[in-house]
Formats: sequence, structure tokens, C-alpha cells
Amino acid sequence: QTMPLGLYDVVQLAILGAGFALFAYFVYSWNSKDEVSPRYRPSVLAGLCLAGVAMVAYLILYIDWDTGFRLEGEVYVPNEEARTTLGTRYIDWSITVPLLTVELLAVCSVAGAAARKLRFTTMAAAFLMIVTGYMGSQVLSEGRDATALVVWGLISTAFFVYLYVALIGAVRASLPTMGAEAAASLRNATVLLLSSFGVYPLVYAIPVFVDVTPAWFTAMQVGYSVADVIAKVGFGVLTHKVAKLRTAEDV
Amino acid sequence: QTMPLGLYDVVQLAILGAGFALFAYFVYSWNSKDEVSPRYRPSVLAGLCLAGVAMVAYLILYIDWDTGFRLEGEVYVPNEEARTTLGTRYIDWSITVPLLTVELLAVCSVAGAAARKLRFTTMAAAFLMIVTGYMGSQVLSEGRDATALVVWGLISTAFFVYLYVALIGAVRASLPTMGAEAAASLRNATVLLLSSFGVYPLVYAIPVFVDVTPAWFTAMQVGYSVADVIAKVGFGVLTHKVAKLRTAEDV
Ligand SMILES: CC1=C(/C=C/C(C)=C/C=C/C(C)=C/C=O)C(C)(C)CCC1
Ligand SMILES: CC1=C(/C=C/C(C)=C/C=C/C(C)=C/C=O)C(C)(C)CCC1
Repeated sequence: QTMPLGLYDVVQLAILGAGFALFAYFVYSWNSKDEVSPRYRPSVLAGLCLAGVAMVAYLILYIDWDTGFRLEGEVYVPNEEARTTLGTRYIDWSITVPLLTVELLAVCSVAGAAARKLRFTTMAAAFLMIVTGYMGSQVLSEGRDATALVVWGLISTAFFVYLYVALIGAVRASLPTMGAEAAASLRNATVLLLSSFGVYPLVYAIPVFVDVTPAWFTAMQVGYSVADVIAKVGFGVLTHKVAKLRTAEDV
Repeated sequence: QTMPLGLYDVVQLAILGAGFALFAYFVYSWNSKDEVSPRYRPSVLAGLCLAGVAMVAYLILYIDWDTGFRLEGEVYVPNEEARTTLGTRYIDWSITVPLLTVELLAVCSVAGAAARKLRFTTMAAAFLMIVTGYMGSQVLSEGRDATALVVWGLISTAFFVYLYVALIGAVRASLPTMGAEAAASLRNATVLLLSSFGVYPLVYAIPVFVDVTPAWFTAMQVGYSVADVIAKVGFGVLTHKVAKLRTAEDV
């Protein structure tokens, strides 16, 4: 759909700004991984890897946004490159959301076989949650079929609920095993991550309820970009703090 | 051949998703190679190098996929860039499969002249297996000639069988030389790698038996992408674990 100039520029801010934030966080994690002992290193490495992937995904989003529209008079007219502004995000999440669960679980206190099982099931649930969402939002009728959106959205929500419950359970069980300061940061990190998770289904559901005007489309892009920065950068900085505090406790 | 929108997007998910996973694994190996002692370092280095190659191969696949089709009405129509969606994969494998055998053998306990000979013959067999497969699937009639597919497929299978037997033999001989935990992980890694190897000849044989419709073409691309992630990332993470456990045993 065509985009008025102002709204086009708002989306530009959302995409490029989020890409810059992720790049900054990538450089930060790369250079601060030694602040954390080997025991919690997997958490920092997961954060580093997912920041790298997300940064490249935003670079692709930016290029497609830039080349996907031609200015004709006073409006931007889309071409085929503009088709992927949502799909590329899902492909990014299919890798980064499983890594986010690793990042969180690696600063919890679950260990041994139970930890391996929990890590595997939460990664699988996160992956399936995103891939089923991709079916509704991209593959079937380009996300404009309300029935497909609802059906695949509900399947995706089943994985979402499992993930929520499993992660909260692991954090709950871990809080008493660490010092007060680390526990407070872990609680904050978890609240931040799980509230940002709530944004995605809301944005996904927009085309079910309203006709996607340029203004709504802009709202969707801004919503996803802001949520991505909170879930990756904000959550990552807090998790890094937990890992650092727990490293100090272990000495 | 033309691709309907939905199937095009599924292939997009397979290619870009696999590329992201390989990039994440590349960043991970780069940042965790010091967790392993110099004795097993060659394994991690082989994994790092092959992840780098595969990541670039998927970047090329993604660019060709993106520029190889033009949207005309409701279908994607291919142009000449779309010819390489299989060939680029073989070129990637011709380098990465020999490196996969190095990665596996370097955490086994074969040493000295026997190790050098085994490494050389398995690398050569892996290389020849892929190059002969490339003949059938790309060079002759663009992989649409059933006779060429079968003849070159059988030559390739001869190398495949040698490789299988040699790798299983080396692993079998090594398992008793290490602790129980490392042995269990090495066994898992080998099973994972060799089962993923089974996917490739099956996908290769698809054009022998069926007419390659867009749906079959999509299945081939998804099959190769999933198998690549399992054989490189899944196997690599398990091998890294073996190397870490054996490092701890040696101290
Ligand atoms: C429940 C649900 C969804 C949930 C998506 C989530 C929870 C995505 C989280 C992404 C994150 C955290 C990205 C990090 O940067 C979908 C797939 C939209 C489809 C509709 C139902
Ligand atoms: C036996 C056989 C084949 C085997 C291919 C294999 C085993 C490829 C493995 C690739 C891997 C492991 C890539 C890693 O990412 C070919 C060439 C399809 C041709 C047909 C016969």
C-alpha cells in the first residue's frame, strides 16, 4: 500500500533506530563477556548471538524498506520488495526467541538433566510459536485472511502459554537460591521479557479487527520495533547484571 | 518455474532462517573456542570455518532467491538468477562436508599416522561424494535427466558408504577411551550427523521419481535447509560439548 511521506519516515525511524540499538548491544556484549564467570557465560553468548542475528535482520528490513518504495509525487508507492516487512521479522524471531529462552534459563539455578529438558522444550515451543504465527501472518493470503490469522494465531498461542508457564516456573524456583540484589534484577528481567511478549500477539491481531490503513501499518512496525528493542536490549542488559552479580556471589 | 506467493515465503523462511542459525553458531564458536584445550581445538576451528562458509553460502542463496523472481500479478516468475538454488548448496558442501569429518575426528581418539590417513581419506571421500552429486543434480541437464541423476547418484553413494563406515569405525574405537558423559555426547553427535546425512540422497532422488512441482521444489529447499542446520549447528554444539568434557578429563 502507498505510504504518505510522514508515516514512511516514522517507520524509517523505527526500523533504523532499532537496528542501531541492536548493533550497539552487539558490540557491548562482545566486549563484556569476560565480566561473567564460565558458569553464566552461556547466557551472555546467547545474548551476543541473538543480537547479531537481529542486527542483520534489521539491516535487511532497512534495505527492503528503502528499496521497496518509489516516491511518486507526494506518496511512496510500494513494489515487491515491500512484501517482506513483516515476514523477515518472523524469520528473525524463529532463531532469536529460542535464544532468548537460553539467555534467561542460563542465569537460573536449574541444573543437570532437568535443565537440559527444560531448555529443549522451551526452545522448541518458542520456535513452533513463531513458525505457526508466520503461517497466519505471511504464508496464507499474505496475512489478510482473518480466518487463517485466527486459526494459526490460536495454535501459536498454545505454545505461547506453555512457554510462559515454563519460564515463570524456572525463575520462581531459582529466586530463593541467589542473593537479594541478583534476585531483584532477575525478577525485573523476567517481568520485562514477558510483558514485551504480550505486545506481539496484539500487533498480530490488528488486521483481524481493523482495515490496515497506512497509519495502522505504521503502528504495527513501530510496535514490533519497540518490543524487539525492549525484549533484546533491555532484557539483555538486565540479564547481564544478574550474571555479574551471581558471578560475584560464587567467588 | 513459477512459485505461488505462499510457497515462495516458505522457502524464504527456510533459507533466511537457516542463514540466521548458521550466523548465530558462527558467532558462538568464535567466542567459545577458548573453552577447549589445544588438543581438541582443531574440532572447534573446523566448526568455526565451516559455519563461516555456510553462512556466506546462505547469504548468496538468499540474494539469488530475492533477485531471482519477479512478482507478476499473483505469482513469482523466475529469471536466470533462480538457476543456482541447488548448485550453490553443493559448492558449499564440497568444502563444509570435508570440514565436518575433521570436526568429528578431532574429538575421537585416533592418533598419529593412522589419524592423518583417516582424515585424508574421509576428507577426499566427502569431497568426491559432493562433486559427483553436483554432476547429476546441476551440470547434466540441470538435474532433470533421470539417467544422469541415477548414474552419478550411485557413484556418489559409493563414496557415501565408505565415509559412513570409516566414521563409525573411528567413533566406535574411541568411545571406550573417554568418560561416560563424553562418550554419550559423542554417540549422540555421531547419530545426529549420520542421520542428517541420510536426508540428502533422499532429497536428491526426488526428481527421479516425481515431477518437480512448486510444492516439491519447496519441500527440497526446506529439506536441505533443515538438514544443514542439524548437521552443522546441532552436531557442532554436541561436538563442542564432547571437546569441553574431554578437556576437563585431561586436566
Ligand atoms: C502468541 C502469538 C505470537 C507470539 C509472538 C511472540 C511472543 C513473539 C516474541 C518475539 C520476541 C520476544 C522477539 C524478540 O525480539 C505470534 C507469533 C505473533 C502469533 C500470534 C500468537
Ligand atoms: C549419497 C549421495 C549424496 C550425499 C550427500 C550428502 C551426504 C551430503 C551431506 C551434506 C551435509 C552434511 C551438509 C552439511 O551441512 C548426494 C551428493 C546428494 C548425491 C546423491 C548420493
